[in-house]
Amino acid sequence: MNITKSIVFLCDKNELSGVKKIAAKVRNDFKLVFGAEPQLKEIDSANSVETDTPCVIFGTAATSPFFADYLGAQNLNKREVYAFIVRNNQIIIAGSDKRGVIYGLFHLSELIGVSPLVNWCNILPAKKKTFELEDGIFVSKEPSVRFRGFFINDEWPAFGNWANHNFGGVNAKMYENVFELLLRLKGNYLWPAMWASRFSDDGPGLENAILADELGVIMGASHHEPCCRAGEEYRYLRGPDSVYGDAWNFRSNEKGITKFWEDGLKRNGKFENVITVGMRGEADTAIMKNATLADNINLLRDVLKTQNRLIRENVNEDVMKVPRMLALYKEVEPYFYGDKHTKGLMGDPELEGVTLMLCDDNHGNLRTVPTEKMRAHKGGYGMYYHFDYHGWPYSYEWLNTNYLPKVKEQMTAAYDFGIRDLWIVNVGDIMTNEFPLSYFLNLAYDYEKYSATEYTTQGYTAEWIEQQFPELSHKQKASINNIMNTYTKLANMRRTECIWPDTFAPVSFGESEKILTLAENVIKECEKLKEELSKKDYPGFFAQVYFPACGTMNVLRMQILAGLNRWAASHNLFAANTYGQRVEECLAYDKKLVDECDKVDGGRWYAMGWSEHFGFIHWNEEENRYPVIAKPLEPRKGRLCAWVEGVDLVTTGGDWTRIPLRCDSFKNPCVETAKVFVAGANKKMLPYEVNIDKENDWLNFTIKKDKTLLIDTIILSVDRSKLLMAKNQKAVLKITGDGGHGCRIRIDVLIDAAVPNINYDKGTFVQTSNYISMEAAHFAKKQAGSWKGETSQFVELPGYGKTLSAVKAFPVIAEYPKGKNAPYVEYKFVAASEGVKQFDFFLNPSNPAYKDNKLAFIAEVNGDKIKKDVVDEKTFAVGDNQFPWGEDITNNIRISTVYADCRAGLNILRFYPVTPNIVLEKIVVHNANEPFPQSYLGAPESFVIS
Amino acid sequence: MNITKSIVFLCDKNELSGVKKIAAKVRNDFKLVFGAEPQLKEIDSANSVETDTPCVIFGTAATSPFFADYLGAQNLNKREVYAFIVRNNQIIIAGSDKRGVIYGLFHLSELIGVSPLVNWCNILPAKKKTFELEDGIFVSKEPSVRFRGFFINDEWPAFGNWANHNFGGVNAKMYENVFELLLRLKGNYLWPAMWASRFSDDGPGLENAILADELGVIMGASHHEPCCRAGEEYRYLRGPDSVYGDAWNFRSNEKGITKFWEDGLKRNGKFENVITVGMRGEADTAIMKNATLADNINLLRDVLKTQNRLIRENVNEDVMKVPRMLALYKEVEPYFYGDKHTKGLMGDPELEGVTLMLCDDNHGNLRTVPTEKMRAHKGGYGMYYHFDYHGWPYSYEWLNTNYLPKVKEQMTAAYDFGIRDLWIVNVGDIMTNEFPLSYFLNLAYDYEKYSATEYTTQGYTAEWIEQQFPELSHKQKASINNIMNTYTKLANMRRTECIWPDTFAPVSFGESEKILTLAENVIKECEKLKEELSKKDYPGFFAQVYFPACGTMNVLRMQILAGLNRWAASHNLFAANTYGQRVEECLAYDKKLVDECDKVDGGRWYAMGWSEHFGFIHWNEEENRYPVIAKPLEPRKGRLCAWVEGVDLVTTGGDWTRIPLRCDSFKNPCVETAKVFVAGANKKMLPYEVNIDKENDWLNFTIKKDKTLLIDTIILSVDRSKLLMAKNQKAVLKITGDGGHGCRIRIDVLIDAAVPNINYDKGTFVQTSNYISMEAAHFAKKQAGSWKGETSQFVELPGYGKTLSAVKAFPVIAEYPKGKNAPYVEYKFVAASEGVKQFDFFLNPSNPAYKDNKLAFIAEVNGDKIKKDVVDEKTFAVGDNQFPWGEDITNNIRISTVYADCRAGLNILRFYPVTPNIVLEKIVVHNANEPFPQSYLGAPESFVIS
Repeated sequence: MNITKSIVFLCDKNELSGVKKIAAKVRNDFKLVFGAEPQLKEIDSANSVETDTPCVIFGTAATSPFFADYLGAQNLNKREVYAFIVRNNQIIIAGSDKRGVIYGLFHLSELIGVSPLVNWCNILPAKKKTFELEDGIFVSKEPSVRFRGFFINDEWPAFGNWANHNFGGVNAKMYENVFELLLRLKGNYLWPAMWASRFSDDGPGLENAILADELGVIMGASHHEPCCRAGEEYRYLRGPDSVYGDAWNFRSNEKGITKFWEDGLKRNGKFENVITVGMRGEADTAIMKNATLADNINLLRDVLKTQNRLIRENVNEDVMKVPRMLALYKEVEPYFYGDKHTKGLMGDPELEGVTLMLCDDNHGNLRTVPTEKMRAHKGGYGMYYHFDYHGWPYSYEWLNTNYLPKVKEQMTAAYDFGIRDLWIVNVGDIMTNEFPLSYFLNLAYDYEKYSATEYTTQGYTAEWIEQQFPELSHKQKASINNIMNTYTKLANMRRTECIWPDTFAPVSFGESEKILTLAENVIKECEKLKEELSKKDYPGFFAQVYFPACGTMNVLRMQILAGLNRWAASHNLFAANTYGQRVEECLAYDKKLVDECDKVDGGRWYAMGWSEHFGFIHWNEEENRYPVIAKPLEPRKGRLCAWVEGVDLVTTGGDWTRIPLRCDSFKNPCVETAKVFVAGANKKMLPYEVNIDKENDWLNFTIKKDKTLLIDTIILSVDRSKLLMAKNQKAVLKITGDGGHGCRIRIDVLIDAAVPNINYDKGTFVQTSNYISMEAAHFAKKQAGSWKGETSQFVELPGYGKTLSAVKAFPVIAEYPKGKNAPYVEYKFVAASEGVKQFDFFLNPSNPAYKDNKLAFIAEVNGDKIKKDVVDEKTFAVGDNQFPWGEDITNNIRISTVYADCRAGLNILRFYPVTPNIVLEKIVVHNANEPFPQSYLGAPESFVIS
Repeated sequence: MNITKSIVFLCDKNELSGVKKIAAKVRNDFKLVFGAEPQLKEIDSANSVETDTPCVIFGTAATSPFFADYLGAQNLNKREVYAFIVRNNQIIIAGSDKRGVIYGLFHLSELIGVSPLVNWCNILPAKKKTFELEDGIFVSKEPSVRFRGFFINDEWPAFGNWANHNFGGVNAKMYENVFELLLRLKGNYLWPAMWASRFSDDGPGLENAILADELGVIMGASHHEPCCRAGEEYRYLRGPDSVYGDAWNFRSNEKGITKFWEDGLKRNGKFENVITVGMRGEADTAIMKNATLADNINLLRDVLKTQNRLIRENVNEDVMKVPRMLALYKEVEPYFYGDKHTKGLMGDPELEGVTLMLCDDNHGNLRTVPTEKMRAHKGGYGMYYHFDYHGWPYSYEWLNTNYLPKVKEQMTAAYDFGIRDLWIVNVGDIMTNEFPLSYFLNLAYDYEKYSATEYTTQGYTAEWIEQQFPELSHKQKASINNIMNTYTKLANMRRTECIWPDTFAPVSFGESEKILTLAENVIKECEKLKEELSKKDYPGFFAQVYFPACGTMNVLRMQILAGLNRWAASHNLFAANTYGQRVEECLAYDKKLVDECDKVDGGRWYAMGWSEHFGFIHWNEEENRYPVIAKPLEPRKGRLCAWVEGVDLVTTGGDWTRIPLRCDSFKNPCVETAKVFVAGANKKMLPYEVNIDKENDWLNFTIKKDKTLLIDTIILSVDRSKLLMAKNQKAVLKITGDGGHGCRIRIDVLIDAAVPNINYDKGTFVQTSNYISMEAAHFAKKQAGSWKGETSQFVELPGYGKTLSAVKAFPVIAEYPKGKNAPYVEYKFVAASEGVKQFDFFLNPSNPAYKDNKLAFIAEVNGDKIKKDVVDEKTFAVGDNQFPWGEDITNNIRISTVYADCRAGLNILRFYPVTPNIVLEKIVVHNANEPFPQSYLGAPESFVIS
């Protein structure tokens, strides 16, 4: 059919008010596309509509048999399903329930090119005169996960000030926007803001809850707010004369607390809810301190008994029909599992039908998941995931730092482990997390589609960009694609708040320079697009691309520059001044960004950039460190410092401290140029000479001067044909100067260009420096295994992790306790020398899947199998002040080290999973008994035969 | 008699030319004082001089019986003695030998007010018309130490460039000044510059050696230059065709080396020398590597045999009459002592009559000294001491950093241990070390006078100032006295080159502030005197006071300011900028000083300030670190930081990180005021409020604002009469502010003013904070002991060490292996709590006296004796890369820790020596199981009942 502005919307006059409200939003979408808002006509019966009227007829199966017929009997009892029929110039949207028709309406909206972020972000669709829809019938699937939603949290200073400024409070005017965002993204479930808010009081009054129910949003409350009561409510209502008593204590104030819960259920029980059950201490703390495990379990059982009784009395006699949720969070988890001596709540009748909510470690890695046996629990399992966190070891609350490959890996695993009833993600202030949130809710809605290996997150990103910015040029979309992939990868490498000047190695492996270039390119591309984009597209671009990308990448570059400033100053280099100036420019740029966020799009995002985001030294922002700029003073004598690219060994070439520098780059046959840096410590560069012995005619150099940094780059290049003929494949680059006052300078750079034997199979790594580094995905071979009759196999997770990607064995729930039948990946490498090598396996900092606390792999070196426990099952724990967990998640890597004797020449390494959750990113092999340079990303990949 | 300008000088026409040359210098001194140079008349016989001619008659006993008579038969065979007779308007100076009469002449010069530094430093005497000398006879004593002198060393870039610029080389023109300086200071012995010089070739030719001999200077050579040959000579003369061969190897090139030595003795044997014997490797290295101890000992014995033979043949058949010296330095020491399996050279006939030269550890602490048995060695012992050093762990070569109390303690001990034949001190470039050199040579000349306890180094300093600047006002002299004492104490606390920004605690115990104030006051006093002093006095003042004091104190203040800059920046304080600017001002001031040194007094000291002197990170200057200035950037939110004076605990008063500050100062009943600091992190100070509860009427405060630093000082004061009456002697000072963007600030300072019980005996220390610190000299009581029938007793060494002073038991050579009969000092202290305390004994970093490597004391706590080995006798060693030695001498302290259980209330501590070389400066007692703040000087003294 051909859609034009003359289309009308038709619905039963008895249609639910919420559905009509959503239809009004969709009609407004039509206005944005076609220039005029379609009329809504309420009709007595859809059957009476003339077949040639171009219209959208929408309704729920319960309202009218017309829709029930279209939906088909087999779909009537499905959750949130719609039939979408196009024929005879008409579109019929028949929902199995309220949300079914709502999703159908928004589906239409998306079809005509409207982004789900249209109203939330002012992302405007392309204007059209007509839009062609082919005739056909499509019935949507029942969503994969039953309750799918997000949690507005950690909402001060950003979200809270934003709501006050733009809506006068955290009220229904504000929530209407949030509900719409949720529903357009095909979510159905929300935890409201609760730091200083009472959802059911702030509407004003009950208006928030009424509106949610009207629009079809199922309300939950955070994990420690039972019985439809916000945590803040008790603080507000308690007192010596209160009917609720004055103690959040079920033992000493059972009557008051029970009354408090009862009144909550009476107030909100009539709405759609997932009712939190259980009890924790106030403000996210443990409920009973200094009590035995048994005391705590008994208390919690009594609480559940009371709550189930209250629900029966005030919500539904059949408590099994009432969605209820218990969070197995922090100290509640041991109450569920119990210990050797005390039975936990697992299997307790009071928990039957209650969804058990598990969670990640607050930093994006699943914690304990259900064992096979546990997966049968009636009520199923939920997952509380984090895109934003306020807690130890560091908070991340400013801008989006979430990376889709990680979200996919973790949430598909959650699903595979049987966590399919409830997914909720903490999105902090929402703004800038819409992108990962879209992915999260899409995956929850249609697991089969989005979990597929072929459906990469990179593909998703491209589609998402197409949805937001359909009118941009192909080149502009490609640019945004690069920006989104790069900034989220870098921001996830180490979240913004905990990047420090010393995070990245200033010189070793050229790490700082590489990351700095990536970050600066993102900012450059953003600035270019900012210049190019239309007024229409800019607001959405700012909110979804420009602000999070420039914001996070600017902090990253600022911290790296601060590191370079510090490093340069520590060697008294003049360059420190230039780096320092650049740091200040970054700080000014940050201020400009936050200011623009306050003002852009008529103040739409006022306050959303206010969270602190530099150098956290505590878990929260307090006392965070702004960069300190190091300014070196000029030494009396002239001084030069030299170092070789990638090697953090600096010499000034003085008589006593002179150290020869080494450059082994040309041993790698792919390398054509290498760099030696000569930097000045004085305000003017000292004159110096560079010489190579004439016989080394295979080696040439040019000098590039950076007069701002006072760092000269000696670019060495090699003529490989001459090198092959040369008698001596080693040369010395001599740098000589005179610092005055009797200060002679002589720096020797020993250049070794002798290429080792490379007559090996394709895919073999050959050592040309002091290590062999192999990206996990660059295995020479992989071998399938089997688990419970199913084939198991390693799969590459594209883009995953800190460097190239990762490999992980599927099915993810498979385990191979003794390594039997495990799949493997095999690596071949040629070591330059024999001896004991250190194998550093760079793994995602996953947590053990089960309470047995096991996480292990097998490394097989030249036939010898070494089983490696990645964590100590006796001591490993997730939580405040827990190491190594806290350090690993901050670094976003867990390096697990194995030692094995190697041959000089070819060696074979095989890598097998033992437990689930082994995700391998990289392997670095180096001599066990020699120091190896520190860096944040580990040594970059070695030469590999191609 | 009355001396006027008409006095004449008379001597025998056969008098030695050197004596006449010295007389000419003294006649010039008379010219400086009286305005006209007295005539010199050579006469046939002194007997013929008319008795009423006002004259100075001088001569040697050997030249004329006239002088022999005046000297007296009993003094004829004494070394370097003169009789000084005033009668009948005549002065008769009769020397027992050449140096006797020379010292007598210079004695006259000093009597009329001429400084020994007159020509060296252009220190001019007061002009006089007449000078009254009382009639009388004085016969000088034979000098205490036989050979007394200094070593010009480490002479580049300063001394070498100076000599080239002012004299055209290290030649006789230059040396005449050095010889004069030596003789006026009553030294007799010199080791010439030898880094790139050959004393017996550079005169030009032999002129240096000829002049030395003429003027009565006995030449030596450094410890590794045998047989009157400079080390550089061999490098210069060796070669494949050289008669001396081409290997500094007595085994492979015995003939060449023997010839080399022989020619040296032939050339210089006719002059007065102390001939170095033995052999080391070239340029101060070990002679044979990879050889057994026995091989080395045999080699050295053969060397000595050859050298003694050559000396017999070329200098004196009676080798026992030839002063010879063997340095027991570095690797030579074990060859002397041998080990369990191999007998050393000790007692070898070849060593009979050879002075065995011992040395300090290059940093002013004696190494092994002779045991009682060894002291009988014929030839005796020498000491090579350092006022300047070029080596590990750090070089100190710029300006004087030597402190007389330490020199006195060490050199008197050397004498007491029987080291009395030869004292030589390395003075580097000489300049600015003249002050400690004067003391060193005075002590060597007259041990009895200068070693006396009553004759303090402070008294010496006052006399020295009187000698150099007689015409200044009393106030000016007092000011110079303060400058000399303060700068040398501070410079010796940690030598200039190895002060770092983190040396002194920025806040703890107010350490930085105290030292900074002292250093700045020295500079202020110097600058004031510079304004006041006449053109006549300024050159001497510059060289001896202004340059070394301002130079060293400026580096000290610069490094402290750099530490404060770093500390302030680490807390994001605006003050860092101000501190940083001050650091830059210090660097400019340093440059100005060095420039003035090049130009002052017509270029007299050109190049003498050229040595590097900032932040050594290696043992020498290379790659030394100029200060790096930290510049904090302004945080987005307003921020205040607060801390209590002396306590390095800073809080910003944020909601989560808030820490209460504590102020216990008023528990000390002597304390009337205490300070709390509030500093800004932003460009403008945030407004804030300060409050105290009204009931605490005993506590008041005023606020002093420093607008340059943006640090406010809240000065708390206490009304002790009101406090006594107060119900509550604790109060809370509340500081509140608003940082904007929802950032509340609240800082509580908990003030505890409850004075503990102080009803104890006078001299008892009472704990009012978290420690008890007691200056060693503030013992409550001391008890004599006995050693070999002699009374032994602790004596205070005024001004010694890093804080107040020190105590040391005398006689210094006494030992009490089991503590029996040992003297002790007793301390009384009242602990606030019972429990195990840590007793930190702050000791001079002395080395063990003997080869047994023992250094020990006994601490007796409440009757329990704990013997403490200060160093591990199995592992302790002095030398390159030796720890803890290297660290202790850098810190100029060795902290020896003892743990003992204490009572709450009164405790008694007694301290006994076990071995020699125990010098105690301070004792700090604190709870063993609690952290205690780091500081460079240790906690300052606690409240003591007076």
